[in-house]
Amino acid sequence: MDPTRLSARQIAEAVSAGRLTVRAVAEAHLDRIAASDGPVQAWQHLDPDAVRTVADAMDRAGPKGLLAGVPIGVKDVIDTADMPTGYGTRIYDGFRPPWDAPCVTLARQAGALIAGKTVSTELAMASPNQTRNPWNPAHTPGGSSSGSCAAVAAGMVPVAFGTQTSGSTIRPASFCGVVAFKPSFALINTVGIKVLCPGLDTLGLLARGIDDAALCTAALAGRPDLAALTPPARPRIGVLLGTRLDKADPCAIDAVHRLARLAEAAGAEVTFLDPPAWYDGIFDLHEAVMGWEVTRSLAHEIAVHWDGLSPVTRGMLEAQATVDEPRYAAAMAELPGIRHLTDALLSRFDVVLTLAAAGEAPEGMATGDPLFNRLWSVLQVPLICLPVAKGPKGLPVGVQLVGPRGADHRLASAALFLETAVTAAGGPQ
Amino acid sequence: MDPTRLSARQIAEAVSAGRLTVRAVAEAHLDRIAASDGPVQAWQHLDPDAVRTVADAMDRAGPKGLLAGVPIGVKDVIDTADMPTGYGTRIYDGFRPPWDAPCVTLARQAGALIAGKTVSTELAMASPNQTRNPWNPAHTPGGSSSGSCAAVAAGMVPVAFGTQTSGSTIRPASFCGVVAFKPSFALINTVGIKVLCPGLDTLGLLARGIDDAALCTAALAGRPDLAALTPPARPRIGVLLGTRLDKADPCAIDAVHRLARLAEAAGAEVTFLDPPAWYDGIFDLHEAVMGWEVTRSLAHEIAVHWDGLSPVTRGMLEAQATVDEPRYAAAMAELPGIRHLTDALLSRFDVVLTLAAAGEAPEGMATGDPLFNRLWSVLQVPLICLPVAKGPKGLPVGVQLVGPRGADHRLASAALFLETAVTAAGGPQ
Repeated sequence: MDPTRLSARQIAEAVSAGRLTVRAVAEAHLDRIAASDGPVQAWQHLDPDAVRTVADAMDRAGPKGLLAGVPIGVKDVIDTADMPTGYGTRIYDGFRPPWDAPCVTLARQAGALIAGKTVSTELAMASPNQTRNPWNPAHTPGGSSSGSCAAVAAGMVPVAFGTQTSGSTIRPASFCGVVAFKPSFALINTVGIKVLCPGLDTLGLLARGIDDAALCTAALAGRPDLAALTPPARPRIGVLLGTRLDKADPCAIDAVHRLARLAEAAGAEVTFLDPPAWYDGIFDLHEAVMGWEVTRSLAHEIAVHWDGLSPVTRGMLEAQATVDEPRYAAAMAELPGIRHLTDALLSRFDVVLTLAAAGEAPEGMATGDPLFNRLWSVLQVPLICLPVAKGPKGLPVGVQLVGPRGADHRLASAALFLETAVTAAGGPQ
Repeated sequence: MDPTRLSARQIAEAVSAGRLTVRAVAEAHLDRIAASDGPVQAWQHLDPDAVRTVADAMDRAGPKGLLAGVPIGVKDVIDTADMPTGYGTRIYDGFRPPWDAPCVTLARQAGALIAGKTVSTELAMASPNQTRNPWNPAHTPGGSSSGSCAAVAAGMVPVAFGTQTSGSTIRPASFCGVVAFKPSFALINTVGIKVLCPGLDTLGLLARGIDDAALCTAALAGRPDLAALTPPARPRIGVLLGTRLDKADPCAIDAVHRLARLAEAAGAEVTFLDPPAWYDGIFDLHEAVMGWEVTRSLAHEIAVHWDGLSPVTRGMLEAQATVDEPRYAAAMAELPGIRHLTDALLSRFDVVLTLAAAGEAPEGMATGDPLFNRLWSVLQVPLICLPVAKGPKGLPVGVQLVGPRGADHRLASAALFLETAVTAAGGPQ
C-alpha cells in the first residue's frame, strides 16, 4: 500500500499493528514532497534526514497512540525545539525556541511524526510568503495557514496544524480543497503559538477528511469522544447565508446550496434561516477585538521592528490601530450576550451551513478576504470547512459548517454525514 | 530629594518636568539595591551598567509618559529581549527571548526604565528560589512573584510586575507588606509571559501604594481612567470571610476586621456577608481548571525536562495531573454562571474585603498556601492586596479587596479610600 493514500487513522492503525513502519510512512511522504513541492513551496523548514532519524527512533521504541506514525506539518508560528520557528517574518528568521508548543508535544505523545514547519504569512497576518495553490500555482493558497493547507492538498502530509484569528484556517482550506476543523475556542491549548489575539486565536487541524481532523483534535484536546464520530441518520441542518453576499462570488453561494441539496437527498431536514437581528453587528465586534488585541500583542514588533515588516503587514497594523480602548471595552461587554444568543440559535441544529470564503482562490498572491469567517471566530464557536464544489476556474470551493460552543462532537459528526453525502455524489464538483 | 522615597507618580512628574533625570532615579535605586539586596536576593538578573546606559539614552531623548523614568522590576517569567529570561527554572537558565513581552514594551513606551528581572519560583509554581522576606530573611517572601514583592518592599523599585494563576501576586504582596493590583482577567495583555493556565493567568502590579499600582495598570491596559482614582466619600463595603477559616491564622482574620473598623470610622457603610451557596464549590472549580490546563501548558517541560524540575514542582504537577478532561469540561461549563452570580453579589458594593493570605509569611522557604486567593482567580475578578496589619511575629498582614469583573476603577478607587484610612490610623499595625 502507498502510505500517502492512507488516512491518518489508517496509518496509525497500520503502524500500531506493526504492518507499517514509521520510516516507510516517512519515506513515502518525503518522496511525495520531493515530487510535488517544487511549484507549491509549502515548507518553511524540512530536513528529510532529521525526519528519518526520528522515524527510526520511533520504530525502535514501538510506535503507538492515536496518531502513531502520522506525519504532521506544523505551521511556522508554532514553537518547535528541534526545528527553527520564524513566525513567517524575516525579523525572526532562524529563531530556535527552547520548547515545543504543547500541541506539538501532545501530538508527539500520541505517536505523531512532526514532518517539518509549513509556511505562514508574516506573523499569521495577511502578507503572503512563498506558497502557491497546488491546484494552480498562479493562485493563492490563502492564508495565513498557507503551507499547511497546500501541503495537505498536495498529499505531502495527511494532517497539518493551522491557526485562526479571523479566517486563517477555514479560508485557505476552502481555497485548497481540504477539510479544516477549528474547534471551540480554548479546546486545544494554544501556549507556544505566536498569539495575535488572546481572545480569538485557535489551533485548527487541516486534513483530507473530517474523521482525520477530529482524530487529531481528540489527541490534542484529550477528548477521546472526538476519535469516534457518530453521524446522525437524519440531521437537522440550518442554512445561514447571512448578509454582505454582494462580496461573494456566486460559486460560493452555489456550494452552500449544493451541500444543502445533497444533505436533503441523504435524509437531512434542511431549514433556511434569516440572519438574526444581531448578525451584522458581529463583524464590528470582531474588528474591535482584533484591532485592539493585535496591536498590543505585537507591541514589540511594532515598536522595534517596524521597518523589517512587510508593507502589507504595516498597512494592516495601521488599520487595526484605529480601534481605541473604549470601542474594545464596549465590544468585550457586548460579546457574552451575543455569544449566548448565537449558541441558542445554533443549538437548534446539528450543523449550520455558511460560506467558507468569498469564492475560489483569487489569482495572485494576496490571501483573500476573511469576511465570512471572522464573525464566527469572534463567537468562539467550532467551525469546519468541507470541500463541496469546484468554481468556474476549476478551483475548490468549500462550505463552512458551524455549531454552538462546546458542540464539537455533534458538529464533527454532522460534518461526517455531509462529507459522506458529497463523496456519494462524486466528490466536490 | 531621594528618588527612592518618591512614588512612581512623583518620579514620572519630576522626570517629565525636567526636575529629575532618569539617570539620577536609576542611581538612587541601584544604590538601594546594592545596600539592601544582600539578604533579600530579589534579583535574578541585574546589570547596573546596562541600566545606566538605557537611563542616559532616555535622558537624551527627553523622557515623558505616565511612567517617565520609573524603575520597574520584571518577574523572570516575562520575556525580555535585552535581558535573559529563565522562567525560574534551571532548565531554561540563560535563555534570551527574541522579543519583549507586550507589557514590557508598553511600559517602556510609557517611559519606564526596566531595572532588571526579579526572582520567580520555578515556572511560577510553588518551588521556591533564592529570595527571602525583607522583613525577616528567615521567612518566605511568598511566591511565585517572590522577587517582585521583595524588591518593592525593600524600596529597590517603586513598581514591579508579578503574575497570578492561583495566588502568586496577592499572597506574596501580603507577606511582604506591599500593594498588589491584579486587574480583571485579560485587561492587560499576557502575550510573552510563560503561561500556566490560559483561562487564569493575569499580570499583577506590585507597588508601595494603590495609586502607583493603578497608574501602571493605566499605562499597560491603555486605560487612562485608572491613572485618576476617585475615592468615594462613603463607600459601601462588604466583608466576606467565607469558609475554611480553620486554615487561617487569627491575625489574617483580625486584619480584615481592623480594616472594616477603620473604614467604618472613616465614613464607609460596612455589611458582613454570609458566603453564598456556591462559595465552597469555587475552590473545586479552580482546582479543575488549573489541573487540566497547567499539565497541558507545561507538556514539553513534563515530557522532556522532568528530571530537571525540582521535587516540589514535580509533586505539584503530579497532583495536578489527577484532573481529567470530564472534570475540566464540567468546570468550564459551570463557570460562566458562577462568575455571573458572583459579579452580581459583588456589584452591590464598592469593594468586598476578604483574606489575602492565611496569616504572616511562614518561616522557611515554602511559599505558603494560596487557598484564599485561588477561588477569586478562577472568577477572573479584579483583586487588590492592601497592607493593613502586623502579625504576632511583626510581619505584614494584608487584606484582599475584591470587585466584580470590569469594575477595576471602582475597586481601585475604593482601595484608595481604605489605604487612606489605614495611613490615617498610623499605617499597618
